[in-house]
Amino acid sequence: MTASRDYEALVQRGLKLDLTRGKPSAQQLDLSDAMLKLPTTTKTGAGIDARNYGDLQGLKETRELFSAALQVPAGQLVVGGNSSLAVMHDTIVFALLGTMPGAERRWAEQEVTFLCPVPGYDRHFAICERYGIKMVAVPMTAEGPDMDVVERLAADDPAVKGIWCVPKYSNPSGITYSDDVVRRLAAMPTAAADFRVFWDNAYAVHHLSDQHDQLADLLALCEEYGNADRAFVFGSTSKVTLAGSGISFFGSSPANVEWFLSHTAKQSIGPDKLNQLRHVEFLRDADGIAAHMRGHAAIVAPKFELVDQILRKELGELATWTAPHGGYFITLEVPNAADVVARAKAAGIALTPAGATHPYGQDPDDRFIRIAPTFPDLEELEQAIYGLTVCVRAANA
Amino acid sequence: MTASRDYEALVQRGLKLDLTRGKPSAQQLDLSDAMLKLPTTTKTGAGIDARNYGDLQGLKETRELFSAALQVPAGQLVVGGNSSLAVMHDTIVFALLGTMPGAERRWAEQEVTFLCPVPGYDRHFAICERYGIKMVAVPMTAEGPDMDVVERLAADDPAVKGIWCVPKYSNPSGITYSDDVVRRLAAMPTAAADFRVFWDNAYAVHHLSDQHDQLADLLALCEEYGNADRAFVFGSTSKVTLAGSGISFFGSSPANVEWFLSHTAKQSIGPDKLNQLRHVEFLRDADGIAAHMRGHAAIVAPKFELVDQILRKELGELATWTAPHGGYFITLEVPNAADVVARAKAAGIALTPAGATHPYGQDPDDRFIRIAPTFPDLEELEQAIYGLTVCVRAANA
Repeated sequence: MTASRDYEALVQRGLKLDLTRGKPSAQQLDLSDAMLKLPTTTKTGAGIDARNYGDLQGLKETRELFSAALQVPAGQLVVGGNSSLAVMHDTIVFALLGTMPGAERRWAEQEVTFLCPVPGYDRHFAICERYGIKMVAVPMTAEGPDMDVVERLAADDPAVKGIWCVPKYSNPSGITYSDDVVRRLAAMPTAAADFRVFWDNAYAVHHLSDQHDQLADLLALCEEYGNADRAFVFGSTSKVTLAGSGISFFGSSPANVEWFLSHTAKQSIGPDKLNQLRHVEFLRDADGIAAHMRGHAAIVAPKFELVDQILRKELGELATWTAPHGGYFITLEVPNAADVVARAKAAGIALTPAGATHPYGQDPDDRFIRIAPTFPDLEELEQAIYGLTVCVRAANA
Repeated sequence: MTASRDYEALVQRGLKLDLTRGKPSAQQLDLSDAMLKLPTTTKTGAGIDARNYGDLQGLKETRELFSAALQVPAGQLVVGGNSSLAVMHDTIVFALLGTMPGAERRWAEQEVTFLCPVPGYDRHFAICERYGIKMVAVPMTAEGPDMDVVERLAADDPAVKGIWCVPKYSNPSGITYSDDVVRRLAAMPTAAADFRVFWDNAYAVHHLSDQHDQLADLLALCEEYGNADRAFVFGSTSKVTLAGSGISFFGSSPANVEWFLSHTAKQSIGPDKLNQLRHVEFLRDADGIAAHMRGHAAIVAPKFELVDQILRKELGELATWTAPHGGYFITLEVPNAADVVARAKAAGIALTPAGATHPYGQDPDDRFIRIAPTFPDLEELEQAIYGLTVCVRAANA
């Protein structure tokens, strides 16, 4: 059989390639090297000495810089440290250990269930698993989570307190939620008064071409439908500037922001404001962000195109995959995904573990593989994706 | 009466001075301005691209740089974000929501009591209060907490799970724990198997002169006495380099470090490693840290001397106060402290609220006032401290 002969030949090549994580390449990081000499000033517009303690909410100029991209008024944004994952983690912790606006009790004192659109982001699921939050998978459609399912579960069960969403260029399918899905998330009745949409807008400005997906404004819609406190918006510059040295954001209603800051006030005397100024000087404004992101697209888009080309040529009808307009991932749907990933591993191609796209690492249909094309160079990527197709054919011969 | 006439005259002056927080002055922050052009390289000694994600424990070179100062082997140090308070807060959260080495249950499932040497640091107490951890005050002596009291409470009550310590140039008394106190903390039997010493070594290298207090090595002593997992060591560069843009440290036994990282792995994909390299390039080694800290001492020591002079001249026998060899604070003990602070406020001199040095903000003897002399310049400081003495005399006329 050709498929198994090809696989034997692949294993013989002794590759050592990694497609596991959504990391920017060195070339992308080079785009921000000028930041290493910034900031040139340490005084803010309001005359604050950015070197000292304080200013828990973050500098006004930093909040204004990202207000439009994150669709949150600057006054309702909080700037955090280098990791939006930490902001999400801590928000869960604060909900477990403190009483949120609209909540009767702390989440630690009751059963809590989160809805998890699948395929989804494994690090979201890991936070829930660590803290004993039950997860229920909800299928994704081309427009976002299946809202018939979401509405039913949220309306019926008061233990359902939240839903994880990566609404734009989603991790890992790459799709963007339709206006109708966003509107329904904002409007739907929920059995829990303290239900929250965890809106991880990680790829808000991460377009791959001039064709920009448009995302409806969840925060505004929640207010419009009388559910002002429903949205928790998260974002970061980890994949805008420097992956380890970016800044993060929390945005929500005034009541939620006050609640959030009442917790972070116990945690810290203030954020790294020099890094905030560094970002303001480097990116300047919304146009500066857009120009900078075009630099990323010029590096990343050819990688996405290459993956699509190889999959089309080698797999054809055997699999389906997404062709996103932005973000960091392509989702490959194939039969026997776990076997494909195991074969790839044996051939020296590291993929995110099969099932990682699902709560508890369990993909009941054994179909989903997340491809992260950004980190390798084009040559490595070509080898890895071609190798992956060999594994798909061998596993389904 | 002279005292009340002097006070009236003080109020008439309409001062606006702030002695509340232990903030470095702008002049001190200037000492680190060269950091704004660093790092000059983004590759670590191990070839890691410091701009990207990863390396949860922190860079080896950064851990080695602070290992001696914090008395923790580099392999047992973790480098965190810009706030050691956040590391302490999060350690409490991880103990509440996860099971620590030696613990039978999560702290959230039981009554937890912390011992709080007084006077102590209000932000430690605020974390306990926020999360419902009961606090019991323990008197400080000139050698550290009264160990007879600490040993009795720790031995008798399994709810006693921890003690807050600022062991060197303590906040706010400025004293350093004696070798005997440190040894007893390491050796004492505790009713709780998961008892922890929260060792906030915030002022490890913050000497005011060439007379350096020496602190015994808690972590080594805990291991020697068979209580290897007892010590949680915290530190930061907030008052070494830039108050808002420093790096923080967690140090402990290998088992505790593994437990800590198992939690932070859910929280973050890695710390800001460029800021770590920035610190390594700027401070270089232990000698570099010492030289840099002499620069701080040259600015800060005259302020401590000025406070001592004025208090001696104006208060004499009416009060007692500390004359620390390092750190950021002087503790003034006077009768009717709350009245003194209220009078100072009315005269435009902001002091840390009376009682802030005690759990729940309650100083039963109404005696302790924390003086933070670093932030104002010498002229403002002279006015503020002279004004304070006027308030002391007026309140005790």
